[in-house]
Amino acid sequence: MAVPYKAPVKDVIFAYDVLNSYETLQNIDRFKDFSSEIAIPAIEECAKFAEEVLAPINSIGDSEGAIFNNGEVKMPPGYKDAYEKFKKAGWASMSLPTEIGGGGMPYTLSGGTLEVLCAANMSFVLGPGLSIGAISGINFNASKEQKDKYLPKLVSGEWTGTMNLSEPQSGSDLNHITTKAEPQSDGTFKLTGTKIWIGSGEHDLSENIIHLVLARLSGAPEGTKGISMFIVPKILINEDGSLGARNNVNCISIEEKLGIHGSPTCVMEYNESIGYLVGEENRGLHYMFTTINEARIRAGGHGLACTIGALQGAAQYARDRVQGRPVGMSKEDAKNSTIIDHADVRRMLMTMKSYSDAMRYMMYDSQMMLDLSYFAEDELKDFGEERCGLLTPIGKSWISDLSVELTSTAIQVYGGMGYVEETGIAQYFRDARIAPIYAGTNGIQALDLLFRKIPLDGGNAVSKLFGEMQSTVSEIEKLENFNHLSNTLKFHINELKNVTESITGLLIDGELADASGSATPFLKMFGQVLGGHYMGKALVKAHEKFTESNDEFYKDKITLSKFYLEQLLPLASGYIDAIKSGNEDLFKIKSNNF
Amino acid sequence: MAVPYKAPVKDVIFAYDVLNSYETLQNIDRFKDFSSEIAIPAIEECAKFAEEVLAPINSIGDSEGAIFNNGEVKMPPGYKDAYEKFKKAGWASMSLPTEIGGGGMPYTLSGGTLEVLCAANMSFVLGPGLSIGAISGINFNASKEQKDKYLPKLVSGEWTGTMNLSEPQSGSDLNHITTKAEPQSDGTFKLTGTKIWIGSGEHDLSENIIHLVLARLSGAPEGTKGISMFIVPKILINEDGSLGARNNVNCISIEEKLGIHGSPTCVMEYNESIGYLVGEENRGLHYMFTTINEARIRAGGHGLACTIGALQGAAQYARDRVQGRPVGMSKEDAKNSTIIDHADVRRMLMTMKSYSDAMRYMMYDSQMMLDLSYFAEDELKDFGEERCGLLTPIGKSWISDLSVELTSTAIQVYGGMGYVEETGIAQYFRDARIAPIYAGTNGIQALDLLFRKIPLDGGNAVSKLFGEMQSTVSEIEKLENFNHLSNTLKFHINELKNVTESITGLLIDGELADASGSATPFLKMFGQVLGGHYMGKALVKAHEKFTESNDEFYKDKITLSKFYLEQLLPLASGYIDAIKSGNEDLFKIKSNNF
Repeated sequence: MAVPYKAPVKDVIFAYDVLNSYETLQNIDRFKDFSSEIAIPAIEECAKFAEEVLAPINSIGDSEGAIFNNGEVKMPPGYKDAYEKFKKAGWASMSLPTEIGGGGMPYTLSGGTLEVLCAANMSFVLGPGLSIGAISGINFNASKEQKDKYLPKLVSGEWTGTMNLSEPQSGSDLNHITTKAEPQSDGTFKLTGTKIWIGSGEHDLSENIIHLVLARLSGAPEGTKGISMFIVPKILINEDGSLGARNNVNCISIEEKLGIHGSPTCVMEYNESIGYLVGEENRGLHYMFTTINEARIRAGGHGLACTIGALQGAAQYARDRVQGRPVGMSKEDAKNSTIIDHADVRRMLMTMKSYSDAMRYMMYDSQMMLDLSYFAEDELKDFGEERCGLLTPIGKSWISDLSVELTSTAIQVYGGMGYVEETGIAQYFRDARIAPIYAGTNGIQALDLLFRKIPLDGGNAVSKLFGEMQSTVSEIEKLENFNHLSNTLKFHINELKNVTESITGLLIDGELADASGSATPFLKMFGQVLGGHYMGKALVKAHEKFTESNDEFYKDKITLSKFYLEQLLPLASGYIDAIKSGNEDLFKIKSNNF
Repeated sequence: MAVPYKAPVKDVIFAYDVLNSYETLQNIDRFKDFSSEIAIPAIEECAKFAEEVLAPINSIGDSEGAIFNNGEVKMPPGYKDAYEKFKKAGWASMSLPTEIGGGGMPYTLSGGTLEVLCAANMSFVLGPGLSIGAISGINFNASKEQKDKYLPKLVSGEWTGTMNLSEPQSGSDLNHITTKAEPQSDGTFKLTGTKIWIGSGEHDLSENIIHLVLARLSGAPEGTKGISMFIVPKILINEDGSLGARNNVNCISIEEKLGIHGSPTCVMEYNESIGYLVGEENRGLHYMFTTINEARIRAGGHGLACTIGALQGAAQYARDRVQGRPVGMSKEDAKNSTIIDHADVRRMLMTMKSYSDAMRYMMYDSQMMLDLSYFAEDELKDFGEERCGLLTPIGKSWISDLSVELTSTAIQVYGGMGYVEETGIAQYFRDARIAPIYAGTNGIQALDLLFRKIPLDGGNAVSKLFGEMQSTVSEIEKLENFNHLSNTLKFHINELKNVTESITGLLIDGELADASGSATPFLKMFGQVLGGHYMGKALVKAHEKFTESNDEFYKDKITLSKFYLEQLLPLASGYIDAIKSGNEDLFKIKSNNF
């Protein structure tokens, strides 16, 4: 039996404090009243929903999975009912703008709800997450008429949406998309082609599914500059808004996957399917990118969520399991001890808990930057866009890679029982494994960081972030007794700055191939140090809160930051030599000799 | 479709050269004729068997699994036939002594065959591996009569054997074993209790199964000093050696696991089952330990094997998959390129390949030390025992932890296809995940290293190893153009020595609890540096061979060693702060606050 998920409400709320979320969002007109008085009850309500509705069907979603039968996909037992409740409670649209019927809450808040809902049941939440992508794709780029036609029911959750990018020959590289769109005399288009990796491309939760599809008009320029975006509804919509004829778009199979069994991953066949152009021709990839950032940040959220679920399981198992006598403990004391009293088990739990705090701050901060980029004005908007751009690849990759490692650690805490599916802990490990892959593999993220994000604003974007990191060091220096921590953080920030400078030098010199070989270790190091920056901020905030309240919770946060800065942050240095090594040795061995 | 496994025969043979295996084994009388002329054809033959018989049924073993039905276990399709061939070819007993009907080959050689057979089909090989454990348990400890009765058919593979240690309340800590053994008037015993994690406890491959069972006699001392070892056959053996009555020992269920689906993990119920005492009363755990070392080394071998299988899959996928234009490559050149031409994919493959070489040397060396410890004499025997003791926990943990990481890397190379079970790559990841758990969790290994192995011979065992590491540095120094590598290795060896000294200081001061908190990062660092030592030895050997032969294979080995020493070894330093931190912070947070 999986350990029942209990949402860590106080941790979520503390993260908002660490990030000064309320103060930051007050600079945005529509969020000026956003405060802990709104955030706390919202997260509490979300916690209740996640614990009571989503968590109980997580295991069954895994063991039974979504089932494909003759073009239709039957979702796991309990999903339909949960989806009705999900819709009604408004979780599908909480952070969508009120103008289109959403809850009007900041993305910052949906960082927390994403974590909580996903930790309870990642497979379930993936579908609505893709709807949000489709909604944003339409809302930012489609005509008023299209928005009026599709958004209300997508936002309410009556319909769901999908994102159709990949094709068998065109995954990470969208240059080679071949799905064709032929213009019809009535202004519509007929789409023909096969799309893969379509999450929730077919299911039985909603009466209609609205596919956002990338396709190529005949005569369009080659490559990504010739891709257009289309709306292709599963069921066509009549003039009066009622459901009309079934469109010729079909799910022809679903993938049998390592995890997220409750989320159908569909192969979709478009065969002269009726579609509607969104915006201008050949601007499809540009439009899609507005939603891709969000999807990448969410992928980090999935990693965080799996880690939290796994941590809770491991902690409970460690508290319950009686086994062995901890080193140095008397036989008498050991009679009441469980494996949580073993230093090595503690190290595993501390590692998971400390990392997951850093992951949380990083993910929520990216969400907050989405708010700035979408809703702030002038310089603050620019700052939000830039910072969001910089944080996204780091957060997506660092968090998702760690989530695989840490859910594996949770299995280790369970020992043999961790390898048995019945305990539910292996599900987190299997589910987490997708996060480094989708929404752009982590290798792609590393290239994005290096070639697109580090050079942002002539390097000023990253310089500003380093400046903030230095401020964190200064803040810690002001506290008593934590000088060794500020020193460690300072040391690693400086190492990161040096490495960034040397890699920027390669970019300036046009040594792009060489730089590309360093992209992944560079991202890993950046993530580890950025995590240190957040844990430093958390230390300062926790210290302040503990002084005010004497609440043990904040003392624990101090410990977790200390643990990160002392014991986890130093792993950052281990990547330097790999970063500096260039890519010569990577290519010395012939392909066939591997 | 999984990529067909191709045994890396030349790599296996090179490992024997790196370890000076033939020269070393010539010091043992029974192996004085062992040479490459024996090893090469043996490994080639093994490769053929693995590729043709075992690999083709690996996927089906995973997807169909062993099936439990009413006390019986049906093995996956093809297993029975493969087992007949396996038996006939003598793989079951290759490294068992000729005195008991084995092939008389050194364990060193079965390092290679273990890797090759297991990479082809780990689930299949686990069963015979457990037989070897039972055979050793009997051969080293049982009476002549018992040996005569059970060994011939176990060695031939007509019967299989199992190891029964764990019980639901007694896994890592065997103190609390409660299975009872009651003496009968005829000198036999009746055993009653439940045993868990019994690999191949029931199956349909052989006509009989011989269980080695730990149980407690009434009135025996508490704890591990009151545990005896018993032989409990599934089917009793008549005086004339023929099969007699069915013993009352039953498999009551098998576990549904994350991986190794083709290997049934049984819950065994003993209910007044007839058993035969092995050796003296209350010496059971001591007897069992002779086989546990072997099992631990094999667990490392399982990790290595999964990594190799996954590497082969990833390399083939990377050679085939067309996607994207590598950074810095012209459009024209990119037309013939696949993802193996991307630096980031190369980095993943190089990391897998380089680590897997280090893992191989480490594992084979442990096997060679088994040969010394069992079959050498005097000082060489002592040396073998000591070194084997020291290497075992490091190799078991470092290799098995890495195998999870590296099989995950292989999935990443596949991108989305890696998450789809059909490609077979995820199986390696799921199969590998057991290796850090069984044969003593990696946390237990770390404690074993710290508290039992580092202090061996008053610290001389580890000092001798450091001495050899220094020699490797000196050997590299003698080569031209590799001084930066010898310097790096030297630097990290010195760091390891310093850390070892400081941790030994804690042991001497009796700060055992504090030391215990550092055990795992210490083992990780030790593994990383020990890996560097082996890769240094490989560099020297490859340089010599390349100079002689101009064979590209050896040039590649030089590159792999260089990559390890430059880019992977430095990760070792990242653990130092964690090692030095003690365990105070590990226990600052209350159990319930996790």
